[in-house]
Amino acid sequence: MKSIENQCDTKVFALGGLGEVGKNMYIVMYDDEILIIDAGVMFPEDDLMGIDYVIPDYTFLKKNADKIKGLIITHGHEDHIGGIPFLLQTVEIPTIYAPKMATELIKKKIEEKVKYNNFCVIGDNTKLNFKSMSVKFFSTTHSIPDSYGVSVTTPNGVIVATGDFKFDLTPIGPMADIHKMASIGKRGVTLLLSDSTNALVEGLSASESKVDETLSDVFSRHNERIIIATFASNVYRLKHIIETCRKNNRKVALFGRSMTNNVEIAISAGYIKDKDILITPEEANQLPKNQVCLLCTGSQGEPLAALSKIASGTHKQIKLMPDDVVVFSSSPIPGNSASIGKTINLLCLKGVKVYTNTSLSDVHTSGHGSTEELKLMLRLIKPKYFMPVHGEYRMLKAHGDLGIECDIPKENIFVLQNGDVLSLRRGRVKKNGSIPASDVYVDGNRIGDIGNIVIRDRKIMACDGILVVITNIDSATNELLGRVSITTRGFVLVNENEKLLLKIEKMATDIIKRYLNSKKTNYSDLKQEIISLLTPFISDETGRRPLILPVIMDIKR
Amino acid sequence: MKSIENQCDTKVFALGGLGEVGKNMYIVMYDDEILIIDAGVMFPEDDLMGIDYVIPDYTFLKKNADKIKGLIITHGHEDHIGGIPFLLQTVEIPTIYAPKMATELIKKKIEEKVKYNNFCVIGDNTKLNFKSMSVKFFSTTHSIPDSYGVSVTTPNGVIVATGDFKFDLTPIGPMADIHKMASIGKRGVTLLLSDSTNALVEGLSASESKVDETLSDVFSRHNERIIIATFASNVYRLKHIIETCRKNNRKVALFGRSMTNNVEIAISAGYIKDKDILITPEEANQLPKNQVCLLCTGSQGEPLAALSKIASGTHKQIKLMPDDVVVFSSSPIPGNSASIGKTINLLCLKGVKVYTNTSLSDVHTSGHGSTEELKLMLRLIKPKYFMPVHGEYRMLKAHGDLGIECDIPKENIFVLQNGDVLSLRRGRVKKNGSIPASDVYVDGNRIGDIGNIVIRDRKIMACDGILVVITNIDSATNELLGRVSITTRGFVLVNENEKLLLKIEKMATDIIKRYLNSKKTNYSDLKQEIISLLTPFISDETGRRPLILPVIMDIKR
Repeated sequence: MKSIENQCDTKVFALGGLGEVGKNMYIVMYDDEILIIDAGVMFPEDDLMGIDYVIPDYTFLKKNADKIKGLIITHGHEDHIGGIPFLLQTVEIPTIYAPKMATELIKKKIEEKVKYNNFCVIGDNTKLNFKSMSVKFFSTTHSIPDSYGVSVTTPNGVIVATGDFKFDLTPIGPMADIHKMASIGKRGVTLLLSDSTNALVEGLSASESKVDETLSDVFSRHNERIIIATFASNVYRLKHIIETCRKNNRKVALFGRSMTNNVEIAISAGYIKDKDILITPEEANQLPKNQVCLLCTGSQGEPLAALSKIASGTHKQIKLMPDDVVVFSSSPIPGNSASIGKTINLLCLKGVKVYTNTSLSDVHTSGHGSTEELKLMLRLIKPKYFMPVHGEYRMLKAHGDLGIECDIPKENIFVLQNGDVLSLRRGRVKKNGSIPASDVYVDGNRIGDIGNIVIRDRKIMACDGILVVITNIDSATNELLGRVSITTRGFVLVNENEKLLLKIEKMATDIIKRYLNSKKTNYSDLKQEIISLLTPFISDETGRRPLILPVIMDIKR
Repeated sequence: MKSIENQCDTKVFALGGLGEVGKNMYIVMYDDEILIIDAGVMFPEDDLMGIDYVIPDYTFLKKNADKIKGLIITHGHEDHIGGIPFLLQTVEIPTIYAPKMATELIKKKIEEKVKYNNFCVIGDNTKLNFKSMSVKFFSTTHSIPDSYGVSVTTPNGVIVATGDFKFDLTPIGPMADIHKMASIGKRGVTLLLSDSTNALVEGLSASESKVDETLSDVFSRHNERIIIATFASNVYRLKHIIETCRKNNRKVALFGRSMTNNVEIAISAGYIKDKDILITPEEANQLPKNQVCLLCTGSQGEPLAALSKIASGTHKQIKLMPDDVVVFSSSPIPGNSASIGKTINLLCLKGVKVYTNTSLSDVHTSGHGSTEELKLMLRLIKPKYFMPVHGEYRMLKAHGDLGIECDIPKENIFVLQNGDVLSLRRGRVKKNGSIPASDVYVDGNRIGDIGNIVIRDRKIMACDGILVVITNIDSATNELLGRVSITTRGFVLVNENEKLLLKIEKMATDIIKRYLNSKKTNYSDLKQEIISLLTPFISDETGRRPLILPVIMDIKR
């Protein structure tokens, strides 16, 4: 890409985060300096068979590794920090600049995977100075403590990346620094990158204080055992649940590894102070039910999480009681509705009272601002150019439309795809080519060792199974040795389909014998012939199209 | 089950429809007479790998085939008629009693599968008389024409099954027969089975007329080409879209097989009269854009449906234009949000204007009544006992709670599972055992030929692929012949992992040689040993746990 070599421009682009909610990674580059903002993962959709994570393509960073000056982290959510272990395995990062909470979470995340300790904890007053660029931070409100927006001053203009934010005028934690946003905006911003997650949600996101009220109501209405599932990283939510428990003379037991981890971090970082009312599951089982609250993971119906196990009756320590009250202080992440529904159905079948964000308003609130808050950010920062980030295309487009409403000229709004490059030169921005930025899959401990063929085979086997046709051939005489072996998995019930399998064996034997008799010896051709003749036969017989895997063993006698 | 043999009781139970939205099938039985109400399918959730349909277990019906007097169909939706081809393959059904629209849809559905023609078209005044039972119908409003509720008079009391319904006081089609419901209720109903789909939705479902207004607004606001995706079976919706097109001087082209089929049926049944404004896709491409409306399938983001192909640019006849207006006159069926999102994102990326039921209120309305409508049904029928049906457990439970609000004693409300039997004797109802009513899977053209093992294997292969280990052994000498062959699919990229595969081959060879050298000849044991030793090795190396399939071929030289 030519423009990347043009040294006088500032380049801005996303390696992840456009057209998706996940794997955020934004690059600001000037001359021989690269700053990376965030390094997230994305959790794969169902059609990515067996893939554990999706990460950005780090090829550009690998090629320009010597220019990387630092990784700046806006906050500690997975879609902003989850890629760090993989990034650190790929390129050298001189320093990770991250807020306190995020730093603790990153340390925990990488401890068993990578040796790395170059952290610089950033805060309200941090200013980072590089050769030609400098970075300031402004605190925002989000569903995890210590969330920051980033302002990067480059020789071609100022770039602001909001990170994830909402405006909560009555937050549980500290107030966002709207004065600093105003002053950054006043001094002039060339390009704004702003969070589009809730660009399709009209109005204002509810305040966390409203959630506090709602949960307090639940506590005052019920004398039964209360079980609350929420996001473990929403530390202020945990904080006010724990405080509400103190007010209502309830002790709190924690369930789920991320819940225990995060509360531990939050206590050591000083966000949560009521350490003394935390009890063990055993203690919880011995107290009267009106003196207990169970705080657990599983608000997304994750099958192995604490609440899912409690609901299905497989939790080792907690058995449901029919008068339990279960609160989902959460909203479904798209794609999880079905599994959440399953958990709720199990709970209902046991007669338990269930509150969710549809049955009880304000039992949860989003950490992302809705349209009016996005407009407030646009007005405060009042950028000349605007690039909506952090969202699917429909969200980016809707956010772009909000930009127009807020007086940004339509031609100054860039709804882009990952890899599309913006060039800034003396306060002017234009689109200028693109670099490769496709998805990279992580399955198990192997980065990128999954191609489309592997995924395609997995999909076929997932739907119709596999049928292995094994033949021994003496290549010296071009003769079939012994019986053709038909072995299947995930295709049909083997014991109840002997006849069908014998038919397939006979057909395969005929194909192979005919081929060998014709004196042909190209066994790749033979394999292809087995596949192309067996497929329609099996499809007619069963309506299924399993993966057919012919194996030809050459036995020289 | 004892109670089933007790001839004086009327038995009522569900073979499908409880704890799920799908495969509705309710049984009313007295003495030697069985009436079946509805015979639906359910579309499987994602974790049922490759399964095409889920149907009820018909074992009970098979065992009591001689008692079956008829199948009564309430309306023509898949979750009420989709099981008929499979049911007809399993037992003899003397007559299918169905409304006109449903009859046409059933005929179309079974024409290539089963020879069957014993239909009796039912209507408002139909009365069916059997030896000890009689059946009357009352028309309801739902999202397909010709929807009926059923009232079955038995010697032990009257049972009413509502079918799917809403109360729409300004419907597009005919008004529901609330007077008949009132008169049935007045004469006394012992047990009500009522639709719970929207029991968690507060208030009233919007009227179809409201949707009509909204769509008319869209037509008057836009001069561009309008593309509307909606449910093909919602004939009144199609009818008013077509009428709106006439008013706005637009011609209509249909896309998608079910759309074409249903409009054809609706025209021949007289629901749709404006046949003359239907045009072909070719004609649509030649008309000015403000004279065209494309009506298509794909409102659920189904990858092969018309709208999805148009969005992805793979539709043969229709290419998107950047100023197209796309309307989703639909709501997401749970589980489809992600695929609908994909379609919308593709459309947004191409700059198209998209209206959905979240961006535009009343562009769609549910065919199922919300809480106030469910209460109205409870008040009209005023049953002594109440069994919520047609819903997941959380919906059944919520509907049960509405029953309590409407003065049905708590102990007279039965939130049950499929197969749980209610016994009616002289106007009194109690729960009385249960019969088997599990899910039966249909994959391809084979009913039930899919066990848990097949599904389990498919899941493993979907996540981590398969690794086939083939060994030739001379059982006469207990000797390994030639190299052990390692073949994989869906595991790793084969060409880039030669080293790993060689390592696995070496390990497998060692295991096999060690086994054979120890003079053991139980090859099942050997297979087990290959699996149990390779699994942890591969998991350590790759983080993956593929299905390991050892095949031992006995070659006698």
